[in-house]
Amino acid sequence: MTAQTDLPSVQKAAVVPKLGGGVNIVSDYPVPTPGENEVLAQVLYTGVCQSDLHTAAGTAPGADGKNITNIKLPHVGGHEGVGRIVSFGPSTSSAPHPDLKIGDPVGIRFLARICHECEFCISDREQHCGKATNHLHHEDGSFQEYCVLDRNYLTLLPHDTDPKVAGPALCAGVTAYKAVKNANLSKGKWLVVVGAGGGLGHFAIQYGKVVGANVIGVDTGKVKEEFITSLGARFVDFAKSSNVVEEIRSITDGGADAAIVTSGSPRAFSGAVDMLRIGGTLCCIGIPPGDVYLTTPVATIIIKGLKVIGNLVGSMAETLEAVELVRNGSVKPHIEVRDFEELPKVYEMLEKGDILGRIVLQVAKE
Amino acid sequence: MTAQTDLPSVQKAAVVPKLGGGVNIVSDYPVPTPGENEVLAQVLYTGVCQSDLHTAAGTAPGADGKNITNIKLPHVGGHEGVGRIVSFGPSTSSAPHPDLKIGDPVGIRFLARICHECEFCISDREQHCGKATNHLHHEDGSFQEYCVLDRNYLTLLPHDTDPKVAGPALCAGVTAYKAVKNANLSKGKWLVVVGAGGGLGHFAIQYGKVVGANVIGVDTGKVKEEFITSLGARFVDFAKSSNVVEEIRSITDGGADAAIVTSGSPRAFSGAVDMLRIGGTLCCIGIPPGDVYLTTPVATIIIKGLKVIGNLVGSMAETLEAVELVRNGSVKPHIEVRDFEELPKVYEMLEKGDILGRIVLQVAKE
Amino acid sequence: MTAQTDLPSVQKAAVVPKLGGGVNIVSDYPVPTPGENEVLAQVLYTGVCQSDLHTAAGTAPGADGKNITNIKLPHVGGHEGVGRIVSFGPSTSSAPHPDLKIGDPVGIRFLARICHECEFCISDREQHCGKATNHLHHEDGSFQEYCVLDRNYLTLLPHDTDPKVAGPALCAGVTAYKAVKNANLSKGKWLVVVGAGGGLGHFAIQYGKVVGANVIGVDTGKVKEEFITSLGARFVDFAKSSNVVEEIRSITDGGADAAIVTSGSPRAFSGAVDMLRIGGTLCCIGIPPGDVYLTTPVATIIIKGLKVIGNLVGSMAETLEAVELVRNGSVKPHIEVRDFEELPKVYEMLEKGDILGRIVLQVAKE
Amino acid sequence: MTAQTDLPSVQKAAVVPKLGGGVNIVSDYPVPTPGENEVLAQVLYTGVCQSDLHTAAGTAPGADGKNITNIKLPHVGGHEGVGRIVSFGPSTSSAPHPDLKIGDPVGIRFLARICHECEFCISDREQHCGKATNHLHHEDGSFQEYCVLDRNYLTLLPHDTDPKVAGPALCAGVTAYKAVKNANLSKGKWLVVVGAGGGLGHFAIQYGKVVGANVIGVDTGKVKEEFITSLGARFVDFAKSSNVVEEIRSITDGGADAAIVTSGSPRAFSGAVDMLRIGGTLCCIGIPPGDVYLTTPVATIIIKGLKVIGNLVGSMAETLEAVELVRNGSVKPHIEVRDFEELPKVYEMLEKGDILGRIVLQVAKE
Repeated sequence: MTAQTDLPSVQKAAVVPKLGGGVNIVSDYPVPTPGENEVLAQVLYTGVCQSDLHTAAGTAPGADGKNITNIKLPHVGGHEGVGRIVSFGPSTSSAPHPDLKIGDPVGIRFLARICHECEFCISDREQHCGKATNHLHHEDGSFQEYCVLDRNYLTLLPHDTDPKVAGPALCAGVTAYKAVKNANLSKGKWLVVVGAGGGLGHFAIQYGKVVGANVIGVDTGKVKEEFITSLGARFVDFAKSSNVVEEIRSITDGGADAAIVTSGSPRAFSGAVDMLRIGGTLCCIGIPPGDVYLTTPVATIIIKGLKVIGNLVGSMAETLEAVELVRNGSVKPHIEVRDFEELPKVYEMLEKGDILGRIVLQVAKE
Repeated sequence: MTAQTDLPSVQKAAVVPKLGGGVNIVSDYPVPTPGENEVLAQVLYTGVCQSDLHTAAGTAPGADGKNITNIKLPHVGGHEGVGRIVSFGPSTSSAPHPDLKIGDPVGIRFLARICHECEFCISDREQHCGKATNHLHHEDGSFQEYCVLDRNYLTLLPHDTDPKVAGPALCAGVTAYKAVKNANLSKGKWLVVVGAGGGLGHFAIQYGKVVGANVIGVDTGKVKEEFITSLGARFVDFAKSSNVVEEIRSITDGGADAAIVTSGSPRAFSGAVDMLRIGGTLCCIGIPPGDVYLTTPVATIIIKGLKVIGNLVGSMAETLEAVELVRNGSVKPHIEVRDFEELPKVYEMLEKGDILGRIVLQVAKE
Repeated sequence: MTAQTDLPSVQKAAVVPKLGGGVNIVSDYPVPTPGENEVLAQVLYTGVCQSDLHTAAGTAPGADGKNITNIKLPHVGGHEGVGRIVSFGPSTSSAPHPDLKIGDPVGIRFLARICHECEFCISDREQHCGKATNHLHHEDGSFQEYCVLDRNYLTLLPHDTDPKVAGPALCAGVTAYKAVKNANLSKGKWLVVVGAGGGLGHFAIQYGKVVGANVIGVDTGKVKEEFITSLGARFVDFAKSSNVVEEIRSITDGGADAAIVTSGSPRAFSGAVDMLRIGGTLCCIGIPPGDVYLTTPVATIIIKGLKVIGNLVGSMAETLEAVELVRNGSVKPHIEVRDFEELPKVYEMLEKGDILGRIVLQVAKE
Repeated sequence: MTAQTDLPSVQKAAVVPKLGGGVNIVSDYPVPTPGENEVLAQVLYTGVCQSDLHTAAGTAPGADGKNITNIKLPHVGGHEGVGRIVSFGPSTSSAPHPDLKIGDPVGIRFLARICHECEFCISDREQHCGKATNHLHHEDGSFQEYCVLDRNYLTLLPHDTDPKVAGPALCAGVTAYKAVKNANLSKGKWLVVVGAGGGLGHFAIQYGKVVGANVIGVDTGKVKEEFITSLGARFVDFAKSSNVVEEIRSITDGGADAAIVTSGSPRAFSGAVDMLRIGGTLCCIGIPPGDVYLTTPVATIIIKGLKVIGNLVGSMAETLEAVELVRNGSVKPHIEVRDFEELPKVYEMLEKGDILGRIVLQVAKE
């Protein structure tokens, strides 16, 4: 494949003019031009993450628990994208990926650029780089037909990756994968996933099973039950159980070895701690609103010897590990493909919490 | 040394007749008789831990955060004791310590007996054994002249251990040691100890320095300042600093790698989280009242990738490691020796929080 | 079940009168009497390990690589035994297993007694205890109808363990299990097992698959091929392959992440190193003759960043973990049950190396 | 500082015209021109490593144990260099280090360029990247006045690093640092360094002490003894001791927890294994000739549960950690500064093994 020389000057994009002002699909958003050490990717498919919704709404909390407001406007979200390279910036240099070619599959992830120098960048935790930019707050993401990417921090995907399913692995997938790693599970250990039927949850079940854990999915309703059990997990309906904590403790003979909470409800977190066995681990992912706290007594954490571990997506290396388990079929993202134009409707569904797995938008027409 | 054949039938002991009813030093408490697989130890010295005070007062929380009420009565506390074996139970068997002799130094620790079979006992976490008994809730401890110990779970101390200083290492010491291990520090990392001048705190500073950390002690007052700086830590006075969190962040250029909180104040825990660097670890020890929670947003834990780890004392192996660092002089417990009779007064001092390091009671007269 | 009160005074046993003198099945070997803190177990089934054969022959190397000669004589081997408790020693104490009952299933393992005090005993590496005794060199093992066991170091098996298959898990199984743990594998990593069709090898394949590894079994012949592939591993015939190392490197795209060598041949070890990927691990188990060395250049170990890890069986905790994976069906020992009297013939088969999995002898008639 | 605009076209360099043909200091070697994404560094100081000597002589073994012959000719070695940036390539891009300035201190290490994509590059083991180039075999190193470096893999040194001492930390230092990490030591553990007085050895002693180990240095002669004891290690003279292994076992009460061998002698490696405690670790560094093997029986490795770990320098992150411990004074490289012209003489001294620590050549005149 040669470079696409006839690139359009404008493109379709999902534009948020101001935070809280809703998202508009427009057709005349400018196609960006890659600079030196940059590439331009045509976006094929993109997942839709709850963080996109919260950021557009202006309700996404930062590290201090307060809502983030310094978001580039107009805002174009999307950070679970799979694309292919269609052109290169003006650089004649081939570094740092000398064999890169037009058509190569690339991921558009949360993280856009990193400093390559700080304590986090050099220790495989670059998602915490203080000088990093990301596709949520600082740069336009995969909710557009063409996206600029930094050649110095390019997510190169294996050529045989299915572009439809790989996108959700780049954010929801790696987040769940890292949580499972933090949980330090092995064959026969018990993992509870609270909010098991959603994007993060259905990945957490599957990565949990990859390491041999027995998994219990907590969610509600017949549809979620069928979905969760089809993934090989036991199901507990939090709306029907007379006492979820006791039910989990009974199934697991004393408590689960780990719990992954993907829900944003305060009760979910503290309930999850009570489901834990002595020495167990609570893995927090999914960034709940800034006023959600752990209401477990510190005394309980001490006496039961518990761990509470937060994690924010994962590094490049961890992302590629999460993708590899999708590529080789160990983990099968459950996706439903929709038209790019349906993004506003997908946001509504996300808010209600009634999506199984992930909805993936088709951006470029094949 | 031969077995002490002329053991008295009654002894001095610190007896709590009912929870909350105060502690009485009596002279006619029966000397216990060791059964099969048991030994009798004469208590030489014993540390005084905050848990003794809270248990006697009926205000010690359990794993569920509620006060523990099913305590053996009359209650004889003490779980930082050092004694020597004065007689053996009627068994003729020499297992499991065939070379045990009269006069051998032993520790009286929190944990008294374990089941040796459960998942915790066989994985070096026996302090969590569900069938265990301890010297705080179930069996009389080191606040008496003679104490029965289980030969199957005997804390054998090195013969050259100083009996005055080893006691506090058996509870406060190992607790701080384990917290430092959980903090995963190394040369040049920053550790903040909140409540640095007390029993747990002054151990945490020293074990932190053993692994090479730079330590900041947070406490208040001139006396604590001199004590803490004499241990090689920087000092921050929480009562004088205009903003402790900012001061710690500034000293550590972004936040500490770990914080160990020995205080029972709710503010101490959440403040400690804010002092942490990205990826940092909060080590909770010391069992605060059951209504103390972490009021850090879960979003902060996730976005900063933090860990919160509780730990309850340590295993036998960890205890002996903590003791060894005292024995070889790497860690020097700061103790003040008082008469056994002064226990009620020591409880008052503990409550006010104005003890430097530990007070150790001399039980047997040498 | 009540205690068996009518225990015989003599029993059937496989007795080695002098090293190298062959093994005799006799009917008049004295039934031992349990002492204080001991139990007597009736042996139901026992595996037969290569170490029994080598020890009886006087050709088993010690830590210094020279043959071990100070073996208790007459020697009664057997350390993969499953029995049930038939009587207790005269002790009235119930410690340390207060609920122990006649009929409870127990394992007869390599390790018989430990000191419970040394650096190895208190750190879950008690197989290295310098004061330990074992059922290979110091005490009569499971090649007899009744065996004395130390109540302070009793291998309590789950009641629903199949006594026919659990025995081999107590030595070959845990050894392979520990090697797999040392190999630090995960989903999709490559493990090569050299000598894959034997007792150790067929366990190594299965424990490797439990942690998600892709496994290649190296052995020879059609029968082994069918056996190894039935366990889910790829097969490479070392006698037929033109270049085993190159074949493994090709299958694994650069080398395996780990190799477990169960064979005693010098070539097997060095070949296994050459099969490794950069950063790979060679796990040595199975104790080859004392003159077998690694003939890999140290330069190779450095430049490829390799690890070579030896392991001797496993701790009690690791043994019970290995047994649990058998009990829950994750690992299925391949066994053939024979009469106890056939031991001499089984030794001959072991020497030729043509046993698939393990032969298990039925000792007590049910 | 502005860019040096008046760069000369020729420079002084230590040139090896053919392997084994000796090294010549010439004055007319062309100054290289940095290309896109490259910088030009003026070399201030450079350490001299044994690998330079062996590569120039054609006797450096590769991963297969055979001598490496495909070396760029003429060969300009040097991979322990410290320089400062004097000009940039023609690129107008500022990525990936936007704040990089003329005058910034940089390291010239073994590794020159990496692929940034392979399993090793994305997992902090980039020294094993199959597409990497290095300053020993493929590119001219620090034995010249001006050296081209890849901006995408730049070793940025802290501005307050002493350029005289930092160079040796970039190869010998990080190699010893990584070996100490692999040895998993802590306060009170025993480390033996064989070949303790040389470049690698004197770093290994110091990094070992940083993690709290008790260190024993094995070497020979009064001068080495004084040097090694001045670093805080005990000294054992291998030429004078009647039995080095027994002496080490006695000092360490049963064997060292780890041994780091920096010597290339076959006896050193196997002797070091015999010095190890049960469960101990042998760390191999320094790349001995290709015919050096471990002559320890595999049976010993198994029965004692030993680990043998090879390591080749370290990653960028590990290098910067090793440098940081030099910068903050925890580790003090022992260096002697000589004129660049003395390189041939330094090679002679290296061959005799009579250099304490490292000799550092001053390349640019300040």
